[in-house]
Amino acid sequence: MLYPSEFDVIVVGGGHAGTEAALAAARSGSKTLLLTHNIETLGQMSCNPSIGGIGKGHLVKEIDALGGAMAIATDEAGIQFRILNGSKGPAVRATRAQADRIIYKQSIRSRLENQPNLWLFQQAVDDLMVEGNKVVGAVTQVGLRFRARSVVVTAGTFLNGLIHVGLSHYPAGRAGDPPAQSLGKRLQELALPQGRLKTGTPPRIDGRTIDFSKLAEQPGDLDPVPVFSYLGNAAMHPKQVPCWVTHTNARTHDIIRAGLDRSPMYTGVIEGVGPRYCPSIEDKIHRFADKESHQIFLEPEGLTTNEFYPNGVSTSLPFDVQLELIHSLPGLENAFILRPGYAIEYDYFDPRGLTSSLQSRQIEGLFFAGQINGTTGYEEAAAQGLLAGINAARFARNDEPWTPRRDEAYLGVMVDDLITRGVTEPYRMFTSRAEYRLSLREDNADLRLTEVGRELGLVDDIRWDAFNRKRDAIEREVQRLRATWVNPRILTAAIAEPLLGKAIEREYSLFDLLKRPNVSYEALMAARLADDSLLAGPGEADPIVAEQIEIQVKYEGYIARQLDEVQKQAGHENHRIPADIDYDAVRSLSFEVRQKLKTHLPETVGQASRISGMTPAAISLLLIHLKRLQYGRRDTTAAA
Amino acid sequence: MLYPSEFDVIVVGGGHAGTEAALAAARSGSKTLLLTHNIETLGQMSCNPSIGGIGKGHLVKEIDALGGAMAIATDEAGIQFRILNGSKGPAVRATRAQADRIIYKQSIRSRLENQPNLWLFQQAVDDLMVEGNKVVGAVTQVGLRFRARSVVVTAGTFLNGLIHVGLSHYPAGRAGDPPAQSLGKRLQELALPQGRLKTGTPPRIDGRTIDFSKLAEQPGDLDPVPVFSYLGNAAMHPKQVPCWVTHTNARTHDIIRAGLDRSPMYTGVIEGVGPRYCPSIEDKIHRFADKESHQIFLEPEGLTTNEFYPNGVSTSLPFDVQLELIHSLPGLENAFILRPGYAIEYDYFDPRGLTSSLQSRQIEGLFFAGQINGTTGYEEAAAQGLLAGINAARFARNDEPWTPRRDEAYLGVMVDDLITRGVTEPYRMFTSRAEYRLSLREDNADLRLTEVGRELGLVDDIRWDAFNRKRDAIEREVQRLRATWVNPRILTAAIAEPLLGKAIEREYSLFDLLKRPNVSYEALMAARLADDSLLAGPGEADPIVAEQIEIQVKYEGYIARQLDEVQKQAGHENHRIPADIDYDAVRSLSFEVRQKLKTHLPETVGQASRISGMTPAAISLLLIHLKRLQYGRRDTTAAA
Repeated sequence: MLYPSEFDVIVVGGGHAGTEAALAAARSGSKTLLLTHNIETLGQMSCNPSIGGIGKGHLVKEIDALGGAMAIATDEAGIQFRILNGSKGPAVRATRAQADRIIYKQSIRSRLENQPNLWLFQQAVDDLMVEGNKVVGAVTQVGLRFRARSVVVTAGTFLNGLIHVGLSHYPAGRAGDPPAQSLGKRLQELALPQGRLKTGTPPRIDGRTIDFSKLAEQPGDLDPVPVFSYLGNAAMHPKQVPCWVTHTNARTHDIIRAGLDRSPMYTGVIEGVGPRYCPSIEDKIHRFADKESHQIFLEPEGLTTNEFYPNGVSTSLPFDVQLELIHSLPGLENAFILRPGYAIEYDYFDPRGLTSSLQSRQIEGLFFAGQINGTTGYEEAAAQGLLAGINAARFARNDEPWTPRRDEAYLGVMVDDLITRGVTEPYRMFTSRAEYRLSLREDNADLRLTEVGRELGLVDDIRWDAFNRKRDAIEREVQRLRATWVNPRILTAAIAEPLLGKAIEREYSLFDLLKRPNVSYEALMAARLADDSLLAGPGEADPIVAEQIEIQVKYEGYIARQLDEVQKQAGHENHRIPADIDYDAVRSLSFEVRQKLKTHLPETVGQASRISGMTPAAISLLLIHLKRLQYGRRDTTAAA
Repeated sequence: MLYPSEFDVIVVGGGHAGTEAALAAARSGSKTLLLTHNIETLGQMSCNPSIGGIGKGHLVKEIDALGGAMAIATDEAGIQFRILNGSKGPAVRATRAQADRIIYKQSIRSRLENQPNLWLFQQAVDDLMVEGNKVVGAVTQVGLRFRARSVVVTAGTFLNGLIHVGLSHYPAGRAGDPPAQSLGKRLQELALPQGRLKTGTPPRIDGRTIDFSKLAEQPGDLDPVPVFSYLGNAAMHPKQVPCWVTHTNARTHDIIRAGLDRSPMYTGVIEGVGPRYCPSIEDKIHRFADKESHQIFLEPEGLTTNEFYPNGVSTSLPFDVQLELIHSLPGLENAFILRPGYAIEYDYFDPRGLTSSLQSRQIEGLFFAGQINGTTGYEEAAAQGLLAGINAARFARNDEPWTPRRDEAYLGVMVDDLITRGVTEPYRMFTSRAEYRLSLREDNADLRLTEVGRELGLVDDIRWDAFNRKRDAIEREVQRLRATWVNPRILTAAIAEPLLGKAIEREYSLFDLLKRPNVSYEALMAARLADDSLLAGPGEADPIVAEQIEIQVKYEGYIARQLDEVQKQAGHENHRIPADIDYDAVRSLSFEVRQKLKTHLPETVGQASRISGMTPAAISLLLIHLKRLQYGRRDTTAAA
């Protein structure tokens, strides 16, 4: 049967990608249908009970800046919040939260159910309706045909999903859920370039059987408790609880090595490639053979459950090995496993087959988002979903796509990486992938994106008003700092020395003073002159605004230099790399990049930059190393 | 792999039967393992969002009296409570609640997770371990072998489940869940007598699209709000909300009739027999062709969702017919369907193959509970689960089974019905199935069962103390009423007449006076003598105790007569039924019984009572009718 009314956009799948896609399309005014095999699993966190982290938190803030759900749902469900890299520069600072799975799911479902223009329908999708080279709808398991102008497929790990525990395997979309085999078959028939990837999840532990006295407690940040959404606040958070830390040891590693002959990965049963940056424990033991111990975080799954998620022991080893390895961890000697760990293999489609709007190059109106594009992680999926939802809606309205650039958003970095380089393993976001990372910070995602989000119809009045108040306050204050001048007569040496470290010798604007490394906005605002008047006058009371001003003023120079550096890279295309270069001596290079360089042995920086998976950030590091070599080793430079 | 530790009891399945089975076995002290294909679906209400009702409420109170979870979880999750038949006798009064699905699930999962001796493990069961004629464990999907002394299988609708929507069908355990095909196959190989049944569920409606102004509101009982558990109270309940009522009409019926040629039931695609007392709407239209309208209740699915459950339109008609029929209902003209209605066919096992402890007669240690035994309803499943859990644990300890009799509990009635008569259609509990129903009331389930529950190790100290306080208070007060005598001197005509309707002529105990039909316990306690002293002295303050005393005293006579009547029935085995009897003239007989009698045309009451599905209660009604005929129609009697 053909459903009697037509939709603008159909979203297939209700995970992190699907929900953001559906919400975004509907928010922008398109009549949107979300098809899911099970309404009860909307917003389910299939793997770890956490959101954010370095690079990932940046994506979540960008989603939020564009009116998405992930950040605010995390604020409602978060039972532990931390700012990672809090002591480092603002570019790499990132928010991470543990979430109560049940509250998170409930929050997402509520948002979906109450979103105007969005309709939910429970039924697995078995087929797409394709006319010529154009998708025109989707067909459900019982033959219901829904027509639409564009379709976003967010099938996650469901396409021909195959779960592995040791050498046993069975078809599934995720533990407990049926796979999407018909849709998988149908998409194969479309002859889009595709492959297999795999991901995994650890066994889950019954908290009643953990000996917490043997574990180190890891509380969240409590003063203040961080917040994810620009519209969130700490009062939204439920009760905050700690995580716990244990470690693998020599016995753990022995157990794992002894089980490798029954590992589906090491015996070749699994063909898909797994995520390098979220590796299974057997991968870690194998690849970092000389590392004697790995940290394992025991993360609470929620406030109303005893389940714990042992982050760091994702595994597809046979269950007897899982049991033994868990029992080898301090504090888990008597742990009861509630759910076995497993690996899942699934179909993905080569993202090089997509345009930067995430539309298929071959089939018009067909968009892909999330793990189906070869990524890993809730945040990566949600961000792609948002973008695909926006562009599917724009396609349906015959509007030009919106494609954020690499210097605008991590979203732009990720999509550009995916569609230009493809993937050889599940793609995870890192700050190191972003060459403009000094500008692409968590703290300014709203300043970067909320205005365009408003133009795209994604940002409602409440967010828009809050954003304008913040932006105006920042602009006013920066203006004031630029326009307020002090001279040595007003700012006497007695006042200047504790504030600036030395007296000023000429007139400066407050803006100039704030640029100095050791001068904080707070100190500048608080500094008092001899007559007890304030040096700077009353500053901005809102700490968010104050933080933003400080970062903008202080990092202006760094950001400008970074842009220079990035532009220079283009000119280094023919810069030769000495044949005898020692890549282990290149500072801060990731293991992955080092490995790739050692394998490919590029002759020039240009060649290096075109290696699949190489990041502009890595090239920067390489250039710095080459410059150092140049000045340190005259002979090499002469040869080059 | 063989799991390293052995269990006493394994429960397969985490629905209503499985959870009560696992909780009961663990409560009674057995090391119990609950195997479920998905921990996330533990306690899921797969069909209607309500618990209780006539007959069913009685089962829930019995489960509660034995320490089970269903009643107290309903108290925690119930968003509307009603006492049905509130104006009728206490035997047929019953509690019914709408539950918030999410809170209910959460409440059940919490209880399971925190039950000592109980372990949860997520993985589908594919096989049983059988040695000789004895079950010794279960095997999961990846070949994990768990050993136990007994196994309770509660597979619900999952065994070879097949979902039908119109003439389309696909394998599933329930919408969104995979079926249990391997286990189904394996159980078939055990060659136990089995068959196919079907059940169904209505389409679900998006509340945003309902025009409530066209509907009649049906609030719950609010003063006081009823409570399910003996340990519950109204303060546990979340916010209370109303249901809404609409009706089918001539157009609805035309739409349905026009769709019957594509109905899987009416075209023979479905082989399984459906529940007569929870029929699909197409069944109702077909069987009660002259009924012009059926009532449809729109039940809220929870406090945080817009979903509504239209109770009364369960259907497996094609989706286009579902859409049209829903739109024909007043208030639903523009309703959006979120999930299609469907029928599901599944394997059940002939319960005549079970003993009264719900153990298989063929395979030792193997227990079956719930829909797998051919019943329908959460309450029927939960009650069987409880009994099977108790007895699986007792079997594991080599204790004699506990098998409640028909005069002790609805649980006894249900199991006796199932194992002696089998089923020809999904079995649902009714008060009419219980010949001792005047004694088997909701209000006295604790008095009937909590003491034996304590002996069985099912009742914890908190429940036991509360129960003892109540029982002792009742006994003390009954004793006092029996021991307190009044005579015409104390109870003068002036006081007696308003209280009793007339003066007393001799000495009476208060117990005797309370037996009189129009004398309430409350009035008796409040009656004041000439000197302003109380007639009865201070009564019992607790309204629950007072109610119990009133019922016990008042219905003593009825209950005694009922027992007489039941005993007499045994003697009527050869009582002849006139060949020209008009069954439509037999008062209060159900449609089902009438149909069976018309089909079988029994020659004697004895024959009638042996017709499968005939209830002792129906035989009572038949006997009353025959007695009436005897006195009204001398000729018939002479012939008989």
